[in-house]
Amino acid sequence: MPPVDSTTLDRLAKLAVGFGANVQPGQEVILIASTGQEPLARKIAELVYEAGAVYLDMVYRDPYVQRARLQHAADDALGYEPEWLVERVRQHGAKQGATIALSGPVAPGLLDGIDPDRIGRDRPPAAKQQNENMTEARNNWSIVPCPTEGWATLVHSDLEPDAALDRLWEEIAIVCRLDTDDPVAAWSARIDELKRASGALNERRFDTIHLEGPGTDLRVGLLPGSNWMGGGMTTSWGLPHRANLPTEEVFTTPDPERVEGVVRATKPRELSGTIVRGLEVRFEGGRVTSIEAAENGDVLKAYAERDEGAGRLGELALVDAGGRIGPLDTVFYDTLLDENAASHIALGQGFDWAVEQGDRERINRSEVHVDFMIGSPEVDVTGITTSGDRVPVLRQGAWQI
Amino acid sequence: MPPVDSTTLDRLAKLAVGFGANVQPGQEVILIASTGQEPLARKIAELVYEAGAVYLDMVYRDPYVQRARLQHAADDALGYEPEWLVERVRQHGAKQGATIALSGPVAPGLLDGIDPDRIGRDRPPAAKQQNENMTEARNNWSIVPCPTEGWATLVHSDLEPDAALDRLWEEIAIVCRLDTDDPVAAWSARIDELKRASGALNERRFDTIHLEGPGTDLRVGLLPGSNWMGGGMTTSWGLPHRANLPTEEVFTTPDPERVEGVVRATKPRELSGTIVRGLEVRFEGGRVTSIEAAENGDVLKAYAERDEGAGRLGELALVDAGGRIGPLDTVFYDTLLDENAASHIALGQGFDWAVEQGDRERINRSEVHVDFMIGSPEVDVTGITTSGDRVPVLRQGAWQI
Repeated sequence: MPPVDSTTLDRLAKLAVGFGANVQPGQEVILIASTGQEPLARKIAELVYEAGAVYLDMVYRDPYVQRARLQHAADDALGYEPEWLVERVRQHGAKQGATIALSGPVAPGLLDGIDPDRIGRDRPPAAKQQNENMTEARNNWSIVPCPTEGWATLVHSDLEPDAALDRLWEEIAIVCRLDTDDPVAAWSARIDELKRASGALNERRFDTIHLEGPGTDLRVGLLPGSNWMGGGMTTSWGLPHRANLPTEEVFTTPDPERVEGVVRATKPRELSGTIVRGLEVRFEGGRVTSIEAAENGDVLKAYAERDEGAGRLGELALVDAGGRIGPLDTVFYDTLLDENAASHIALGQGFDWAVEQGDRERINRSEVHVDFMIGSPEVDVTGITTSGDRVPVLRQGAWQI
Repeated sequence: MPPVDSTTLDRLAKLAVGFGANVQPGQEVILIASTGQEPLARKIAELVYEAGAVYLDMVYRDPYVQRARLQHAADDALGYEPEWLVERVRQHGAKQGATIALSGPVAPGLLDGIDPDRIGRDRPPAAKQQNENMTEARNNWSIVPCPTEGWATLVHSDLEPDAALDRLWEEIAIVCRLDTDDPVAAWSARIDELKRASGALNERRFDTIHLEGPGTDLRVGLLPGSNWMGGGMTTSWGLPHRANLPTEEVFTTPDPERVEGVVRATKPRELSGTIVRGLEVRFEGGRVTSIEAAENGDVLKAYAERDEGAGRLGELALVDAGGRIGPLDTVFYDTLLDENAASHIALGQGFDWAVEQGDRERINRSEVHVDFMIGSPEVDVTGITTSGDRVPVLRQGAWQI
């Protein structure tokens, strides 16, 4: 039984189905959870069918089975999967289905000691089809966090497992605004703020964003057609959905040819079951030239070498201090939460929907999309106009525009 | 953690992969488990990849998600599933993949109170494709039992949950012959016995099998081409596998037009999450004419009315007292085990491979195959020859031929 009061769990499930993915009558729904996340998955399943879905494809991923594959499969089996798995994703796109995914590292450290090269090579063909569905905005989808004991003891290693899980659920209730009278109304207000900030950034049409802080001096060039977005998305067929809950970022897809300097990660990054710590990345001419880390830098390196675009940027996101995650000062080891606590960049695939039609050929393309956090109140963010003027954007986490 | 010593769990996993399904290098493998069966599933996953499989399709079925569907889905959503699920089964057949399924009711009684008509109608299209794969012997496969706390407390309701689970694992070790020095050698010997009995039955070419006992007086006609089988199967491409572990039965597919009389079930039957108790079934001209039960007879009735063949027999199986399940005198509420404790019949789909080519058009066809147990030491089994001679086959559970 989940040691969380059923109100919190019910509210999170309701937010995911009704507001996040915005499931519609007659839809097919994919729900992706990990073993250990059954209580939330089961509540979501009820609400998905109550919303009128015709079919729920319930997928439980088991990290121990993934480890068995990475440890014992033949080299040439890695990266292989049956054709029907690609067909499944293709049909889901064509049928405009909904997807809900539960985040959270359920078995942290489980892949420690596995050859990072094998981890990197086990990228299934369906992931490419999945990227195409996302890029073409075929599906309404949402990712929400789901606490488990494994995750909780990673985040709150100083507490007993039960207390750690209680604490993590309390934090999830806060950052998902489940502690308000009306979580949907609270989210609607915050999303309006994010839209205001992205609108102000779009008015300025900066040429370059300059980030400066301890260990960081990075200039990220923008495309003329780079649009700042935030708060929510809309499918190609017109349905609004909130892809990330919580969401506190405004983001765009930058120019993959114009990134220069050095950046130090401000938070650890959970990646393929390992934790990358003390990361420092250098760029020249838009391309990664070095990846150094105190721990598990090899895992990120394997991602960055996957294909031509994996060593260039697909995303730049700014997060102000007005969100609910940053003030907790908790490292969640989960991208969904940590990226919304701090400004971040992502190696790999860019977002078509964040760039004007005419510039989309210049967007970075890759099978991967790996965020890591580079912002903090100590990192100043400045916009540089085409004429060279410098305009403060974020100072000590507060919007200046 | 499973409260079973790892030796038992490891031996069961090894038996399932190496002897049961007989997984071959280069194969794709489907592993079907229920939530709660993770420890055995994870060990099997390791062994499947060690055996050289290229891909493991790990499927965790969640009975709570099934209940959510049955409770909340619209009427016309029941029985619907996406096309790729049929394609998945079709490709698995075409590629001659392996399948391992873990049995055991993980959440007994969970579907109590659900409209049996809705349960009966939620039969997915892929099941038909699955039957075709089985009938054409395209895949090497095996079903093995996997104890869980939910199952254990059903079987041993007089014990505390931990003790019940320990006891169930002990029984599974016994019935799967994991307590022997060499389980594969022990199974090979038992399978030789089953082959001897089926050979002796085939020599007699009985016209009819007559079952007589308390509440039972049933005559089951055989086809001229009905072959008795037992112990193991072979795929159409020549690979031996053991479809059920444990297996203690010799079986055939009877004449669906010639079944007459009444039969009383000798054990409860777990069906769609409910328990059918006190079952009595009458046949006339091969067809079911009445189904009466003390509990949940409606669930079986819904199955028997699914299609034209669902009310006729597809299987007759005889189980002698030499097996390891009968002597335990435990009701397992799981067909895999209970059917191997006692002689049984099945409504629905017959087995092509148990009938000579020339008689296969006469085999019963259906989307369902539902076994129920009708044998016990008190039930005499007699063979009737074409000339009307009566030959004792089983008396007090012992072979007479």
